[in-house]
Amino acid sequence: MVTLDPKTFPVIKQEFSIDFSYSVAFTKGLFELDNSLFLDTLRADGNAGARKLLFVIDSEVERLHPALIPAIAAYCIAHSADLEPRGQPLIVTGGEAAKNDFQYVRDILEAIEVQKIDRHAYVIAIGGGAVLDLVGFAAAIAHRGVRHIRIPTTVLAQNDSGVGVKNSVNYFNKKNFLGTFAPPYAVLNDADFLRTLDERDWRAGISEAIKVALIRDAEFFDWIEAHTGQLAQRDLPTMEILIYRCAEHHMAHIATKGDPFEKGSSRPLDFGHWAAHKLEQLTDYSVRHGEAVAIGIALGVAYSHHLGLLDQPAPRRVFDCLRALGFDLSHPALYNEAGTGLRPAVWDGLEEFREHLGGELTIVLLDAIGHGVEVHEMDAAILDRALLSLPRAV
Amino acid sequence: MVTLDPKTFPVIKQEFSIDFSYSVAFTKGLFELDNSLFLDTLRADGNAGARKLLFVIDSEVERLHPALIPAIAAYCIAHSADLEPRGQPLIVTGGEAAKNDFQYVRDILEAIEVQKIDRHAYVIAIGGGAVLDLVGFAAAIAHRGVRHIRIPTTVLAQNDSGVGVKNSVNYFNKKNFLGTFAPPYAVLNDADFLRTLDERDWRAGISEAIKVALIRDAEFFDWIEAHTGQLAQRDLPTMEILIYRCAEHHMAHIATKGDPFEKGSSRPLDFGHWAAHKLEQLTDYSVRHGEAVAIGIALGVAYSHHLGLLDQPAPRRVFDCLRALGFDLSHPALYNEAGTGLRPAVWDGLEEFREHLGGELTIVLLDAIGHGVEVHEMDAAILDRALLSLPRAV
Repeated sequence: MVTLDPKTFPVIKQEFSIDFSYSVAFTKGLFELDNSLFLDTLRADGNAGARKLLFVIDSEVERLHPALIPAIAAYCIAHSADLEPRGQPLIVTGGEAAKNDFQYVRDILEAIEVQKIDRHAYVIAIGGGAVLDLVGFAAAIAHRGVRHIRIPTTVLAQNDSGVGVKNSVNYFNKKNFLGTFAPPYAVLNDADFLRTLDERDWRAGISEAIKVALIRDAEFFDWIEAHTGQLAQRDLPTMEILIYRCAEHHMAHIATKGDPFEKGSSRPLDFGHWAAHKLEQLTDYSVRHGEAVAIGIALGVAYSHHLGLLDQPAPRRVFDCLRALGFDLSHPALYNEAGTGLRPAVWDGLEEFREHLGGELTIVLLDAIGHGVEVHEMDAAILDRALLSLPRAV
Repeated sequence: MVTLDPKTFPVIKQEFSIDFSYSVAFTKGLFELDNSLFLDTLRADGNAGARKLLFVIDSEVERLHPALIPAIAAYCIAHSADLEPRGQPLIVTGGEAAKNDFQYVRDILEAIEVQKIDRHAYVIAIGGGAVLDLVGFAAAIAHRGVRHIRIPTTVLAQNDSGVGVKNSVNYFNKKNFLGTFAPPYAVLNDADFLRTLDERDWRAGISEAIKVALIRDAEFFDWIEAHTGQLAQRDLPTMEILIYRCAEHHMAHIATKGDPFEKGSSRPLDFGHWAAHKLEQLTDYSVRHGEAVAIGIALGVAYSHHLGLLDQPAPRRVFDCLRALGFDLSHPALYNEAGTGLRPAVWDGLEEFREHLGGELTIVLLDAIGHGVEVHEMDAAILDRALLSLPRAV
């Protein structure tokens, strides 16, 4: 059978599919002894014997929840036939700082190595979106991917970043320059973590829900608009509904738009995000992601309006809704000194966005509340007018 | 519609599939102006305009092929409507050294950043398996994966490592500790590169073909056995046939065994590899991968024989075939000092192999030439006898 002519080798075509699945569960009191969710989630892997677990915890979560680490220890002891925590939990700095220093990646990799976490063991991240991004990246590149469970502790992470398939760290001062697409083994959303969020983080996560409502679900926007009072007053059941609905939209988008790993150039969910990413970078991440997204939404709505796509009262409704929740709708870093004639600094974000995705620029605008439309070019003069129309922060 | 009760949120299940495809093409004179393979491969992406290309070249390939970089430049100029090389090719040290120093990962990432390589641009690696592993890893983690073309220049890379879906670098002195599963955009095998291989690299790549023949294809082993003379005398057409057949087996295994990204614990293709990886590490990579695999094959065959699975003349035929090709069948680093009573150093490789894969240990042995069988435990006494039965190197 081995009688080929080297001059006429056919091309060998390789084709295969990989199935991915995971679930996002909602609970309270995740590590209370009578809460079986964590245990059931791990038992679902069908392995015999105790699973090795490496916990990595956001420093801010540890500070606000001093009983967390003892509770995890007690939970694992109570279920020691199935759960084997390896070493002490690793604490990493919360917030964007987690993604800016590659040493954290090294530290997590080292713990994976020292604690002998293999592809059937679990790295469990508890924290905000930045810490989840960091831990997810380290887990994805160790042994070509060890199992990874996310326990998001902020609104933003529970309704958006933590329930998706991406991870990343910043590099060369570029947001998310390094990362992979690596679905988690599971996501466990515990609403109790939301009680201790500071005002800014409580609010910041709401912007992704407004974003998804604006581009896909007018009824959801109506609901948010009608509940700004409860949300601003930190009513937890209202926030839980917002998180559930937003997570559902985010996950449906990933699963049904045919491009979970973003091989194409379009990212229709990223309404307002090109400006948001740039603003975070311009302010050295003193503006948080959700806050920047709110400003990006305002800019996107204003641009859609000045382009003639979106008539009043829609822009006014969006601005009012964002302000009722306490968001600033603009930031000095967006503008140049008056009269310098330079293009706004945020404009560079467009090119960086295009470069990150590659190929043709695709920006989402609105032609109605609940309906996004894609465009492939942006006009500098209209962007200037949109920028100037935003209510300036004091 | 937004009237959920937070106490009874259902679990959100996420499920999706990702399709992967790429082709492995065989040619000679890849960058000769009248060879359209490279151009056609890139044009197949359907993009308009010139594709940005970043070339990364193995230092050994550059040294042995001084005309390569000028040829690439001339080729890109001749096809400048489609091809836009960005900057000078990056040269990285060939061999395992490429994977041992994380600075190379940083250098490639920096070139990707500086040259604005996005998800629609290409990183093109030309070199041996170690350089392909390194470049593939950097490309996989930049922007969550930029397109990556492999041009393997050794027998081993053309028939095995370069045509698969893995990349990796070493870390914490552990082979392949970091890496991802990331199929290439395309693989282009140019047989002309094989002419300048040194004796060791020419020979080393043959061992993966023997491995795949032993576990899956008795007829292919017969053919190799009948062609050891031509292979030892560096007959290129014979080597091309060996490479094609081995690549075909390797790719079929990846596509049809249902686990291209190795979520399970079994790696049936890795006959002899647990010992090979450990031997490479024990000798500081002075034993090359293919040489170590040949010794791993000999050890696997000897173990299978001493376990009673594999009768003569099969073990003798394998040993004779390997020796006719010039392989050593053992190495001093495999053994302890006589009489110390310590277990052989290579034994640690078993535990590391299990840890890398996770879960249950799965080792492939042979019960006939052309037929592998899986076992889940190894016996130290039988391993000792197998080790001692290997013809010692002088």
